[in-house]
Amino acid sequence: MTITGAVQRTASPVASQGLEGNSAGDGVALRASLRDRAAAIEAAVDALIPAVPGPEARVVDAMRYATLGGGKRLRGYLVAEVAALFAEGADADARAYRVSASVEMLHAYSLVHDDLPAMDDDDLRRGQPSTHRKFDEATAILAGDALQTRAFEILAETATHSDAVVRTDLVLALARASGAAGMVGGQMIDMEGEGRSLSLEEVRHLHALKTGRLIQYSAEAGAILGQATTEQRERLAAYGRDIGAAFQIADDVLDATASAEELGKTAGKDLAAEKSTFVALLGVDGARREAEALARRATEALAPFGEKAERLRDLARYVVERRS
Amino acid sequence: MTITGAVQRTASPVASQGLEGNSAGDGVALRASLRDRAAAIEAAVDALIPAVPGPEARVVDAMRYATLGGGKRLRGYLVAEVAALFAEGADADARAYRVSASVEMLHAYSLVHDDLPAMDDDDLRRGQPSTHRKFDEATAILAGDALQTRAFEILAETATHSDAVVRTDLVLALARASGAAGMVGGQMIDMEGEGRSLSLEEVRHLHALKTGRLIQYSAEAGAILGQATTEQRERLAAYGRDIGAAFQIADDVLDATASAEELGKTAGKDLAAEKSTFVALLGVDGARREAEALARRATEALAPFGEKAERLRDLARYVVERRS
Repeated sequence: MTITGAVQRTASPVASQGLEGNSAGDGVALRASLRDRAAAIEAAVDALIPAVPGPEARVVDAMRYATLGGGKRLRGYLVAEVAALFAEGADADARAYRVSASVEMLHAYSLVHDDLPAMDDDDLRRGQPSTHRKFDEATAILAGDALQTRAFEILAETATHSDAVVRTDLVLALARASGAAGMVGGQMIDMEGEGRSLSLEEVRHLHALKTGRLIQYSAEAGAILGQATTEQRERLAAYGRDIGAAFQIADDVLDATASAEELGKTAGKDLAAEKSTFVALLGVDGARREAEALARRATEALAPFGEKAERLRDLARYVVERRS
Repeated sequence: MTITGAVQRTASPVASQGLEGNSAGDGVALRASLRDRAAAIEAAVDALIPAVPGPEARVVDAMRYATLGGGKRLRGYLVAEVAALFAEGADADARAYRVSASVEMLHAYSLVHDDLPAMDDDDLRRGQPSTHRKFDEATAILAGDALQTRAFEILAETATHSDAVVRTDLVLALARASGAAGMVGGQMIDMEGEGRSLSLEEVRHLHALKTGRLIQYSAEAGAILGQATTEQRERLAAYGRDIGAAFQIADDVLDATASAEELGKTAGKDLAAEKSTFVALLGVDGARREAEALARRATEALAPFGEKAERLRDLARYVVERRS
């Protein structure tokens, strides 16, 4: 999956409504912004998990395998793009990309563990062998564990921000988003829900925790780094929450409509696992409409940020229109 | 395993040398101190991982199962006892027990993941079914993940210390002790070393990472909480490092000499797994002597702390004399 491929517009008439009124230039600008920031995030991850010699090399190799080599970097992008609302320049960028790298490590740990045989038992991730297939289960468990640790470590390091209050706020927000009351709780609900029907409300709750909270955190982390006012932070958190929800609904739609080749992972797995999805509950068109409504509301939350938030507005459209 | 049972003195003539010159009162005082602090740590863990309703309850239940119900609480004890060198009173104690609970959660996560079938495949832990046997593998993976997250979250919360520099220092020190350059790196070396012989130097390195770093952190965390001077912190870190090493050597000796009933876990597993141990490399008596030398050096590091460090001196003897 390339970034270029990731922002191809969908041919669906419903999904393309969101692009009306926008010049082609918007898509080009977002594409360039995503590509540039993804490259910077990749470089930050590479620098922040250096390969090591010695007998513990294997777990570090697995950490690098799980985090390097692409992906959309949506979470890392959100951190950096939101942070840029508040501060520009090389130093501010460098700090933001550390936080981007941290959230990508946290996200990667969750994917490594979710792919394990005892969890979703997935052999492929981004078109490549999942970490436990490339290495082994024990190494994948440990690499996931150490990626989580490294994510918190990076946030606490003084290079992330000179103000320790900012650093602890980042640690606290990431922990709240990713623990039992957030991402892991969502994954637990997902495992428990297999083989039985969930209501629409239950599915919303599941995804708000499983993917929503970490995407919301990513936007908030940019605001924390930027020492935003409470109102600014709340608006950016609301933006993050809504595009997180839109992203997951779009994911369900993709799982139901795209091919494995487009996704770079096994398609139709949700259906095969009898998972309750937005598509199962709302139909493909209903799910698309809900995602678009969320993306619109996300955009409205950005009103006070003016021109500077243009890429974040583009991103809200992109998450519901992406093909992979 | 009860705390009372845990401090029974060994009958080995080599191991009891360390108690000569000490009145019986020392053992009694340590026993009471361990029991009181273990109860306070248990209460802190209980309060800091409240059971929740709803579909995510299962992962929280597993987190509570893995952390509550005993264990020696060596790490949590070290935090609290070192912190008490610097500050006394109910408020200081309450802060210290939060940090104690945090390190016990980090330790518990490592045990839950180490016990998994893909790792050490252990059915018993403290005489009870290990977490993946009590629940299931997926739940155990997630509970371990969320315990790690909660450990960092607690450190970052303002209730732990009013100074954000103290809080980020705690996060940073815990991350460094427990990540790929610490505990997880040690576990990786341990997995890689199964079925082949390790040199004494390799075994020392393995255990310095796998168990030593977190025990060292526990002593350091008390110093960080107490806003110790650099020299004080270094002395307490050295104390923690040495008793950590002594603890692991004593563990090897116990594995080779104690019964499963005494240990509350499968005995003789190291031998069965053809793991390279201190006992295999040094013999039972040689291993005991090394543990005792480390305990003596640990005690020497405490010299400047006078009377207040008496329980920490007792503890150094206890770690090499314990029967379980």
